[in-house]
Amino acid sequence: MAKSDVKLLGAWPSPFVNRVQIALNLKSVDYEFLEEKFDNKSELLLKSNPVHKKVPVLIHDDKPICESLIIVQYLDEVWTSGPSILPSDPYDRATARFWAAYLDDKWFPLLRELRTTEGEEAKAEITKKLNEGSILLEAAFIKCSKGKGFFGGERIGYIDIAFGCFLGWLKAVEKIAGLKLVDEAVTPGLAAWAERFRSHEAVKGVIPETDRLVELAKIIQARLKAQSAPK
Amino acid sequence: MAKSDVKLLGAWPSPFVNRVQIALNLKSVDYEFLEEKFDNKSELLLKSNPVHKKVPVLIHDDKPICESLIIVQYLDEVWTSGPSILPSDPYDRATARFWAAYLDDKWFPLLRELRTTEGEEAKAEITKKLNEGSILLEAAFIKCSKGKGFFGGERIGYIDIAFGCFLGWLKAVEKIAGLKLVDEAVTPGLAAWAERFRSHEAVKGVIPETDRLVELAKIIQARLKAQSAPK
Repeated sequence: MAKSDVKLLGAWPSPFVNRVQIALNLKSVDYEFLEEKFDNKSELLLKSNPVHKKVPVLIHDDKPICESLIIVQYLDEVWTSGPSILPSDPYDRATARFWAAYLDDKWFPLLRELRTTEGEEAKAEITKKLNEGSILLEAAFIKCSKGKGFFGGERIGYIDIAFGCFLGWLKAVEKIAGLKLVDEAVTPGLAAWAERFRSHEAVKGVIPETDRLVELAKIIQARLKAQSAPK
Repeated sequence: MAKSDVKLLGAWPSPFVNRVQIALNLKSVDYEFLEEKFDNKSELLLKSNPVHKKVPVLIHDDKPICESLIIVQYLDEVWTSGPSILPSDPYDRATARFWAAYLDDKWFPLLRELRTTEGEEAKAEITKKLNEGSILLEAAFIKCSKGKGFFGGERIGYIDIAFGCFLGWLKAVEKIAGLKLVDEAVTPGLAAWAERFRSHEAVKGVIPETDRLVELAKIIQARLKAQSAPK
């Protein structure tokens, strides 16, 4: 596929953008990455995603596709010659979609909340919920992977991409909060999977380094405080 | 398909349950409806959806599928002999998934907020956002329907089901708030579509009557007030 056919509007720290990059790499799709500035959104972004005005947006043959999980499904349906991302069985597909939705709707919002929340009691409450989530995801991993290395079995699939894109922020929040959210003593399957996922060819270089995210988190937090401070 | 193969755990006022019922009707699937009590969830529900503990849950050959949009996609992928719900073209599928997600993540939460919010200024703010949503959805209707009667073209498709299941609550909230949210003067396409959708064979009898929902809304509101009142 020629490079000019596929553009990705993104931002390096966004796990949702990373999600699409991993899917593009898995499918061996050449694409042009257009970095968006947080404070100054491009005309192309505003035109391509007028409803949400957010990255990622994939532009394929001048047609925009928005929302990371929708983009991943689109890539899977268009680039059928590459390895399949969604399972072929409808029940397994429904299961994959269920966990992807869980990660976006429940798990990641908790991780973000933990990053920005202050106060030990509030943090402990969120950590408890995240730990419960890790137990659920460990059970899902055991069930879906069927003894193989990934949620998708022998190869990276939909849940792997949906979850794996958050591993950079997971490490960063663990460092900021001084705790382990995926601990090999408690969730050994997830802990080994996370290492395996990060060193996969399609993932290497996509997920930002932990220290870079920690630095960014500090900047965001300082801005939030400045905004909420009495004037 | 024999009746015993398919069960739906649901509750009559839930638009998300109605969504699945409409899809089942479209696909001419016989199913057993198991009504859940809001205050007393069945063992079967807790076992079938341990993560969210919510209806709808479809049980097909003893395997549970949760989350209404995931269930609709599952039905479309398994009952391929019935009329297609998702479009066949990947870009059209992505567009359908985009609007379905918009309806669940943005539009319906606003409708629910309008029902429970008190204070004229706050209500006006929500109504403004809902009206902006109607304009977006009118434009989507014109684009997707291509001059035909439904978002899916000549027949009911994914966006029709995703949006149409909310029409009962839309009417109820309009009655409670004393205003029009889908007005034929402003969004003539949507207004005509809503009438067409409600009188479709697969929909008739599924969406609850407006007055029944208004009554229920009053009961819920009274309970919320009682809970939040100082003891």
